[in-house]
Amino acid sequence: MPIRCARACLTVAMLSLLPVGFAEDKFQPARLLSLPLTKVRIGDSFWLPRMKTNQTRTLAIVRQRLIETGAIENFAIASGRSQAKFRGPYWSDSDVYKWLEGVSYSLALEPNPALEAQADEVIALIAASQQSDGYLDTFFQLVHPDMKWKYLAFGHEMFCAGHLFEAAVAHFEATGKRTLLDIAVKNADHIERTFGPGRRDGQPGHEEIELGLVKLFRATGERRYLQLAQFFIDQRGQKPSFFEREYAQLDPSRQVNFLGRTITFRTLYDDLLKAQAGKLNTEYSQDHLPVRRQDKVVGHAVRAMYLYSGMADVAAETGEKALLDALQRLYADLTTKRMYLTGGIGPSAHNEGFTTDYDLPNETAYQETCASIGVAMWAQRMLAMTGDGQYADAMELALYNAFPAGVSLDGEVFFYDNPLYSRGKTARKTWFTVPCCPTNVARILPSISKYVYSQSRDALWVNLFVQGEAAAQFAGGERLEIAQQTSFPADGRITLAVKAAPASERSLFVRVPGWASAPRFLLNGRALQPPVERGYARLSRRWMAGDRLVVDLPMAVQRIESHPAVVDNRGRIALRYGPFIYCLEQADNPFDIDRLVIPAGAKLAAAYDPNLLGGVPVVAGAGMLKPETGWEGMLYRPAGVLQGPVNFRAVPYAVWANRGPGKMAVWIESAR
Amino acid sequence: MPIRCARACLTVAMLSLLPVGFAEDKFQPARLLSLPLTKVRIGDSFWLPRMKTNQTRTLAIVRQRLIETGAIENFAIASGRSQAKFRGPYWSDSDVYKWLEGVSYSLALEPNPALEAQADEVIALIAASQQSDGYLDTFFQLVHPDMKWKYLAFGHEMFCAGHLFEAAVAHFEATGKRTLLDIAVKNADHIERTFGPGRRDGQPGHEEIELGLVKLFRATGERRYLQLAQFFIDQRGQKPSFFEREYAQLDPSRQVNFLGRTITFRTLYDDLLKAQAGKLNTEYSQDHLPVRRQDKVVGHAVRAMYLYSGMADVAAETGEKALLDALQRLYADLTTKRMYLTGGIGPSAHNEGFTTDYDLPNETAYQETCASIGVAMWAQRMLAMTGDGQYADAMELALYNAFPAGVSLDGEVFFYDNPLYSRGKTARKTWFTVPCCPTNVARILPSISKYVYSQSRDALWVNLFVQGEAAAQFAGGERLEIAQQTSFPADGRITLAVKAAPASERSLFVRVPGWASAPRFLLNGRALQPPVERGYARLSRRWMAGDRLVVDLPMAVQRIESHPAVVDNRGRIALRYGPFIYCLEQADNPFDIDRLVIPAGAKLAAAYDPNLLGGVPVVAGAGMLKPETGWEGMLYRPAGVLQGPVNFRAVPYAVWANRGPGKMAVWIESAR
Repeated sequence: MPIRCARACLTVAMLSLLPVGFAEDKFQPARLLSLPLTKVRIGDSFWLPRMKTNQTRTLAIVRQRLIETGAIENFAIASGRSQAKFRGPYWSDSDVYKWLEGVSYSLALEPNPALEAQADEVIALIAASQQSDGYLDTFFQLVHPDMKWKYLAFGHEMFCAGHLFEAAVAHFEATGKRTLLDIAVKNADHIERTFGPGRRDGQPGHEEIELGLVKLFRATGERRYLQLAQFFIDQRGQKPSFFEREYAQLDPSRQVNFLGRTITFRTLYDDLLKAQAGKLNTEYSQDHLPVRRQDKVVGHAVRAMYLYSGMADVAAETGEKALLDALQRLYADLTTKRMYLTGGIGPSAHNEGFTTDYDLPNETAYQETCASIGVAMWAQRMLAMTGDGQYADAMELALYNAFPAGVSLDGEVFFYDNPLYSRGKTARKTWFTVPCCPTNVARILPSISKYVYSQSRDALWVNLFVQGEAAAQFAGGERLEIAQQTSFPADGRITLAVKAAPASERSLFVRVPGWASAPRFLLNGRALQPPVERGYARLSRRWMAGDRLVVDLPMAVQRIESHPAVVDNRGRIALRYGPFIYCLEQADNPFDIDRLVIPAGAKLAAAYDPNLLGGVPVVAGAGMLKPETGWEGMLYRPAGVLQGPVNFRAVPYAVWANRGPGKMAVWIESAR
Repeated sequence: MPIRCARACLTVAMLSLLPVGFAEDKFQPARLLSLPLTKVRIGDSFWLPRMKTNQTRTLAIVRQRLIETGAIENFAIASGRSQAKFRGPYWSDSDVYKWLEGVSYSLALEPNPALEAQADEVIALIAASQQSDGYLDTFFQLVHPDMKWKYLAFGHEMFCAGHLFEAAVAHFEATGKRTLLDIAVKNADHIERTFGPGRRDGQPGHEEIELGLVKLFRATGERRYLQLAQFFIDQRGQKPSFFEREYAQLDPSRQVNFLGRTITFRTLYDDLLKAQAGKLNTEYSQDHLPVRRQDKVVGHAVRAMYLYSGMADVAAETGEKALLDALQRLYADLTTKRMYLTGGIGPSAHNEGFTTDYDLPNETAYQETCASIGVAMWAQRMLAMTGDGQYADAMELALYNAFPAGVSLDGEVFFYDNPLYSRGKTARKTWFTVPCCPTNVARILPSISKYVYSQSRDALWVNLFVQGEAAAQFAGGERLEIAQQTSFPADGRITLAVKAAPASERSLFVRVPGWASAPRFLLNGRALQPPVERGYARLSRRWMAGDRLVVDLPMAVQRIESHPAVVDNRGRIALRYGPFIYCLEQADNPFDIDRLVIPAGAKLAAAYDPNLLGGVPVVAGAGMLKPETGWEGMLYRPAGVLQGPVNFRAVPYAVWANRGPGKMAVWIESAR
């Protein structure tokens, strides 16, 4: 029996879709859009090798694993072309969609007929799997056909749908083919006929469909998709919780397949949502409060990031101030109380998510790779909605640190969880029972240029500093094309050379990162001081081909300290150079890195090493060593005298664990 | 149905009581005995005021609380003199016994007819409560008469009996009266008739009876008590666990009174011993392994200390090397991995006990006052058995730090748990639902002189440095009387003046504490270098009245560091001066003490302040302050520069929390 929308949720949902009468309820979204992938060229030493490795190795590895583990075959079974049995987690389809999304971005960057054919083959299977009514989820079709849309808290049908929509839009934009887009539209229409005001109540246990629907709306112009995204967002946190009402209608002793095990609904809900007397742990899915009243980032970290991303997408379209306000509160909460220095989030393996303020342990940091991607996704959307550089700072932080640590330099092995301290036993793996992180990596790397530039109505925004080119096309067809010439992140000198300019005045917004003090600007050799507002320097003029804007961002090695409430980091510092957060790795240092103390006055310098770890700036300095030996049979002793000095070397966290097992530490004991 | 001893446990028990045939199975116990209370005078600035306060305030307060909370009236009810209902925890009797023990020691120190009459009155009630068969436990007699001896895992009848025996011996020694001793003997005989090889199997859930039985054996010469103590020790850790066999015979749905609540046995065992399928958490009561194979201190901290104390008492009588070996392993485990710097133990409130190696958090330190007392008790017994000063070091540490922190200077309020860091909300309480700590404090303070001196066959041992006098009497009636003249712990200069000497050569063993490097000795003005073995200087000669031995223990403020695996203490030091571990209290410092950093080269000096907190050496020095302000809206920032210098003052942890609420920290951030 479908659950009908309760009166309260209907009211809220309908209210928020009404035209808003009062200006104070609205804000003017900045409406920054990413440049199409085809309009950006990446040519730097950091991203380009990763993109190439992703294209040549990771996408192939992911496809191979999806074949081996049955994820692709599940579609063959659902379409009647195989007699095998369903394998994999119940959201297995989403990993195939994420691979297709990555393949599509890759094709946009560079044609590759073989890869395109592989995608076409899988898309044909997906098409053949889809029911005539548009429903599509191989797990439910093959394993529990009677349970479709009946336990949204865990069913992940909407999560898979969201990834289908993202892949479909990417595939359409890259290839111009409607094959996957048609499947997505048919599926979205089915969901939209099923759920919404006056139809069935519902919301996904794992958010994702919201942002997928907005992408589909933007690609098709079909406003119903936007409205459905808002409907799902509006349901969240209503009382009584949709999930509790849904749980009440389930037979607790009914058995379901859960990651290959057969368990009862009671166990499923008890285990994962601590169900007690029908009450669920609603924070896990951010269902504890209506979203407009939320002010703490809670629960499962990836769910949270995807929800906030969806909220930001909706707010960017509707201009609803209450949503923006909530997002700004949540963002402040995340970045001032619950984020690792690396831009990663979610300290706990227990809920794959958040715990308490300032609980940011290093060795047990969960910091799921998908969650770091989620930070970048949400921050990008906040930036797009507001034009505020603080969000670009967080985006850059996650993209240059927590995210790239999730994959090896050879693109073949992956971290699911990313500690900030290791005793030397931590190593990436080839695959996971829950392979969300590798498939997420594979789709983000080829779309990195979407984070580098944005354009608004009459401006081109330079968000990240990446050697390459970009072309913005404005209304009327006028183009502003620039070449970005820089060795960043080796140093902070960037030249923006105008290659083609529009006839009328346009703006270049150049980001001034939070880590750069006193940037200098030279236009065609003459110093100028453009206004810097909210983290962006605005340079407005009638640009001419041949104009050269030099931006000099002073980069110095910084000693970073942490809020005193972060217990693990007391008496410790971390090193930062430009966008990079550093770590000590045992491989670079001839002493036990646990013994290093960096004195207050220690000279620290960064130098680019083109031969190390793909080419990175290495931070070197002189430290002292704690007399850590001789502790056998002792728990306390008179404090020893430091030995030294010793020279130490630190490398970006982004590239750690690429040289076999060894200790690693981000936070280093400090003598102030 | 009583549980009969299983074959395995019988065999072990009987074996260990057999005469041992091989010398390598035996060791020669040092057999140090405490001097009788009447043969020692305490006159120092640290203990004497505490002993007087205990005598004049604490014992009266404890009596008043025992009256108010029904603990004494329970005996009146059991003896038919009151119609009220039983009140208090199921081990309520033990608190009355501990008060009687404290009163007895107090009477030994100084006659007090009023106090003695109060004791006599309570003893008369106890006598009238005892069953004709010797059984005595008001909880079972009044609340669950059918459950006597039926759930030893929780019943605490043996725990109460052990405290009865300790009180009875103390009362007999102090007053010469047999009133309480007769009750104890009758009770012990009843227990000895009930349990033992060939009789019922059993062991106490909470150890204590073991050491009580040895005291009773020593007071009465009745060897059966020693054998019963050994029987209980031998049962521990046998498989299947006695407690599991006992639990199997209980009706899980049977309801019992537990701290005033009515709960089922299932809940009782599930809650406290995590019973699963009949298996209990046997570590909680150190029942996981036979005692001779144990090498980790585990479970409930007080239980562990009392067990090890009982084991040491038995080993000191039997000379069994396997027991000594086990105790030495356990002691090494405790002191090198699981003890706070203050000599306290047990980090976790969850099990009131031990967790994992090096898990010694400061703010949440449970460090129960009773457990600190247990450390001193066990260490004293290890010293008595071996004559090894390492045990005197731990004994001193607990007695000068963790233990005295358990009671206020005015003797009126108490800590149950003792954190090593406080944000300023921590305060002692007047009483507890579980009042074991106040009654334990009340009995230890008047018996402190038992820890100060020992005597062996032909020597007097000076274990602690306390102004006063002591008289040892050797076989044949010869006496060695000394006056100990010292300002310790204000400084480390001690003069031992011989007041009466025996005719033949005897030894003075003077402890050289682990914290004192290079002590100097002067005998009658002439320097000498006595042999120092295992922490004691041995001075053997024909002593003459008028001999003056000056011992100069250099005392300097030490910066103590902690094993790097103790996460909370990384980058921190603690301050030590002689026996005292120091803490910063907000009351002594004009800056937020969380901001203090003590640089490596900081000059630190101790000076006795006779007017502060009863008179203590205060440690003063110059530190620096972290720029801790301005963290609003920030989680990370470039490391600030230290401000200062500032002068700080630290006081002994023993006297903290006597000046109203305020922050306190033992471990202080350090710049090496």
